[in-house]
Amino acid sequence: MKIYRVNMTTLTTSVEEVPEKWRGLGGRALTSAIVAEEVDPTCHPLGPNNKLVFAPGLLTGTTAPNSGRLSVGAKSPLTGGIKESNAGGTASQKLAKLGVKALIIEGQPKGDGFYSLHVNEEGVSIAEETELIGKGNYEVIGKLIARFGEKIGVLTIGQAGENRMSAANISVKDPDGNIRSAGRGGLGGVMGSKKIKYITIDDSKTGSIELADPEKFKQAAKVFGKALLDHPVTGQGLPQYGTNVLVNILNEAGGLPTQNFRRGNFAGAEKISGETMHDTIVSRKGKPTHGCHVGCVIRCSQVYNDKDGNYVTAGFEYETIWGFGAGCLIDDLDIIAQADHLCDDMGIDSIEAAVTMQVAMEGQIIPFGDGPGMLNLLKEIEKGSYLGRILGNGAAMTGKALGVTRVPTVKGQGIPAYDPRAVKGVGLTYATTPMGADHTAGYAVTTNILKVGGYVDPLGKEGNVELSRNLQIATAAIDSTGLCLFVAFAILDIPEAFQAIIDMINAQYGLSLTADDVTELGKFVLRTERAFNKAAGFTEKHDRLPEFFAEECAPHNTTWDFTDEEIDEVLNF
Amino acid sequence: MKIYRVNMTTLTTSVEEVPEKWRGLGGRALTSAIVAEEVDPTCHPLGPNNKLVFAPGLLTGTTAPNSGRLSVGAKSPLTGGIKESNAGGTASQKLAKLGVKALIIEGQPKGDGFYSLHVNEEGVSIAEETELIGKGNYEVIGKLIARFGEKIGVLTIGQAGENRMSAANISVKDPDGNIRSAGRGGLGGVMGSKKIKYITIDDSKTGSIELADPEKFKQAAKVFGKALLDHPVTGQGLPQYGTNVLVNILNEAGGLPTQNFRRGNFAGAEKISGETMHDTIVSRKGKPTHGCHVGCVIRCSQVYNDKDGNYVTAGFEYETIWGFGAGCLIDDLDIIAQADHLCDDMGIDSIEAAVTMQVAMEGQIIPFGDGPGMLNLLKEIEKGSYLGRILGNGAAMTGKALGVTRVPTVKGQGIPAYDPRAVKGVGLTYATTPMGADHTAGYAVTTNILKVGGYVDPLGKEGNVELSRNLQIATAAIDSTGLCLFVAFAILDIPEAFQAIIDMINAQYGLSLTADDVTELGKFVLRTERAFNKAAGFTEKHDRLPEFFAEECAPHNTTWDFTDEEIDEVLNF
Repeated sequence: MKIYRVNMTTLTTSVEEVPEKWRGLGGRALTSAIVAEEVDPTCHPLGPNNKLVFAPGLLTGTTAPNSGRLSVGAKSPLTGGIKESNAGGTASQKLAKLGVKALIIEGQPKGDGFYSLHVNEEGVSIAEETELIGKGNYEVIGKLIARFGEKIGVLTIGQAGENRMSAANISVKDPDGNIRSAGRGGLGGVMGSKKIKYITIDDSKTGSIELADPEKFKQAAKVFGKALLDHPVTGQGLPQYGTNVLVNILNEAGGLPTQNFRRGNFAGAEKISGETMHDTIVSRKGKPTHGCHVGCVIRCSQVYNDKDGNYVTAGFEYETIWGFGAGCLIDDLDIIAQADHLCDDMGIDSIEAAVTMQVAMEGQIIPFGDGPGMLNLLKEIEKGSYLGRILGNGAAMTGKALGVTRVPTVKGQGIPAYDPRAVKGVGLTYATTPMGADHTAGYAVTTNILKVGGYVDPLGKEGNVELSRNLQIATAAIDSTGLCLFVAFAILDIPEAFQAIIDMINAQYGLSLTADDVTELGKFVLRTERAFNKAAGFTEKHDRLPEFFAEECAPHNTTWDFTDEEIDEVLNF
Repeated sequence: MKIYRVNMTTLTTSVEEVPEKWRGLGGRALTSAIVAEEVDPTCHPLGPNNKLVFAPGLLTGTTAPNSGRLSVGAKSPLTGGIKESNAGGTASQKLAKLGVKALIIEGQPKGDGFYSLHVNEEGVSIAEETELIGKGNYEVIGKLIARFGEKIGVLTIGQAGENRMSAANISVKDPDGNIRSAGRGGLGGVMGSKKIKYITIDDSKTGSIELADPEKFKQAAKVFGKALLDHPVTGQGLPQYGTNVLVNILNEAGGLPTQNFRRGNFAGAEKISGETMHDTIVSRKGKPTHGCHVGCVIRCSQVYNDKDGNYVTAGFEYETIWGFGAGCLIDDLDIIAQADHLCDDMGIDSIEAAVTMQVAMEGQIIPFGDGPGMLNLLKEIEKGSYLGRILGNGAAMTGKALGVTRVPTVKGQGIPAYDPRAVKGVGLTYATTPMGADHTAGYAVTTNILKVGGYVDPLGKEGNVELSRNLQIATAAIDSTGLCLFVAFAILDIPEAFQAIIDMINAQYGLSLTADDVTELGKFVLRTERAFNKAAGFTEKHDRLPEFFAEECAPHNTTWDFTDEEIDEVLNF
């Protein structure tokens, strides 16, 4: 495999050998290692000294189930720290099949013109782009299918990314031409700052990935796939209801943040739940289950249609539905679906956008519960109006602009869908992950609420420090394999599943890694990311939740009560 | 003297004895000590846990020349660190005469209603206020004169402060009913967050301040006053041309930042210079010289009229004229005077506003040089439109909203009127002072450019670390006395002047302080402030200038070339 490098200052490209130190890395481990090594932590995230790095995971491109995730890395314009944002879609597998270990984009062109990148078996080339500038992601993908055929891989930014907004994401074409997102941290703004509207990936002239021991690989993949199908979460809950199965579960647990984190349950929960959504999708002839990439056996994605049976959105996730729903006191799934569509089309992180809407409502721009008003606010972001420029830069910026103090962010990134006072393990993850408030960085919901991998009381302190730490280490490793994070449910309960992952990696690369090596990889990733953030000016003072979480959260009336010393233990390994 | 305390949560007030540890402190030393002791460094600056502290200096209220300055302290919503903002006007002397060692405002009322505070010989009282809400500072002061008489002292916020903008300042009535400002760091936003529109100070029922040794005091004051009149800067330059004498000097020195810090000289300098301004004021029957408080012998202020002889602005400072002028490529003094008037009236820091205009022009909202366009942008702040909410939160916020990377700020505060590449001593002050980019914190221009207190080459590195360090220590002490910082010109060249300050303090309080004690006071202030900032999450990584200062600055083509290690030496004492 090779490193593909694009210099947007000189508009030149190169293909380089992979240095020895990066050969054993993939996905998040590789993007974070490259960013840490090549980016000045104090540089402006939207300036020429930041770099944008795409990397498939170690197993991506193989037949390993659920191994098609893409890692995107850079210094984040939202947090000011290092960022890895992780997405499904078809791009990652295509990059892997083309032998792209990582695609590194550096520099910045002079002038206002935009460009596109094209990756194929000959390398990467740069072209000027005018026709698609100012267009939304759906139109971009549609036009690129028309230009290059249905199988083309696409990474693209919408208007938010073009406007270098710090909540802009990078969209990834899925197998149906719909959209998955490398959502968090404003990496779309970084892509926009480099004046790249989209990247096409054409793997039509490549074969399959070479494996050191195909038979051993096949065996391990089979064990792994079976575990995913056997586990109740990955085999039943997620396929049937998608991630939105969580609305009823979190509402029941009192951890569904409602009205900008005022309490943990929502009167309208049933109306926006996964169960309601499933029935709605079926009755409107949408797709209740769907995979975001080839080889996914969980198939938690879906296609949501409107009343007339027309497409509205795909990959309609719990966190988005929570944010625009319970968070904003909106119980109309059709409104929320339209909000998700707008976010995908203009290319803005739907979690950050939803937290931003809550803060905008807190600032009384529109009242809580005003669905049509919320859609209009989102359209301001697309237009790039001054209001849109406030909102498109996220919840922290919106709070500052409006003089709002109840702003649920950590390191400048909006806190997602699990109240830290009622799901304390994930609260510790929000506080301490180098990513800013990010549930995926150490998804303690799994053990706190779903009772997967044992049980740790979500309302108490005991065991949650260790839980968050262990999950953050494991997650950093999983994010490096290209496996979907949801495989963790199976890993935590089925020991053979974890061993199967190690066996697949060993069979692919001819290695003899052990479980300890995987843990070490996770620790290496976290150490690398934390060192970058420290050099960027972060201290343990940034590993804190906003002061308003000292308020009690109904219905359990628990508070955020970890001491600074306890929080600082989470990543002390 | 007493501590006056106002709790805006409970709407109660109290008068307390001064604790032993605070008795020897005044001005900045006292505001910083109180903020450091009573404010959680991690609190939200606009929330109920921040406190706003007013303190006259140690000599304020006496007949010591130029001793009427006021210190205002809080956690800054602009920088996120500790802030002392320093202003003239009549409030400080009135507070001192009333025996107010410090006025501490804490808490935050529920609801949207605003209040006023009234300080007199009986203590401090709280009243509801409706009539003056939404009004500009000139109208507020005019109405309060009508209500309470011409001699009433006033501290007030304009629309910017009401809207809790982080560039909002606190305005102080001057002896003519015009406006001086505690400008930097957004303390007007803090006052707005506490829902206080204005504070009146009525000292009509008090006498003069008691002195331990009146004769010795009188003698020292005489020596001190003579030194101020003898020194060419305080006796001639500042009285004749105001601080705007610096336009020609800095332009000549190649250190006048032009077009958002693109170069160090401005073709239109002569048209906006102090000399041109003086002649214009005289021909329009304004006041070419004027003191901002009783007892000022420097009288660097002035009243600037329009073509028809009508009042436009007073206290028209070099940094404001630089910022809206050379910084924005505007060479029309009348436009700049109108900009200053708008800033004073809506209550926004004219330096932050000017740097913000440069960033807005960089972001192509309006072109550089567009004077009428600039005035319209400022009016957006007053209106509180969405654009105004971006601009009113300062240069860093504006850069983020517009995706601009050339943003001249340190710790979130706009860099003022001296290019750090051509006046390197002040560049080190910008980088390292706990205040964020602030020329007054260690005004190395004095030795770099004016050759006062010796000479250190402004273009080289040698001697500038020590220069900035020594000036920052001395300034922290001067800011604690209530003396105008401009007395430093005389102190640096006339040894008797420095001794006279110590003699006055000793004669007032019956002490026997030495020069070493004064240096220790300065160091205490800086240590206290740096400890607060560290606890708020600041590290040495925040003591850095933006990366674009690595570019050469014409005409000297010097760059910002201090190493991190050299910068970190500045406050290493």
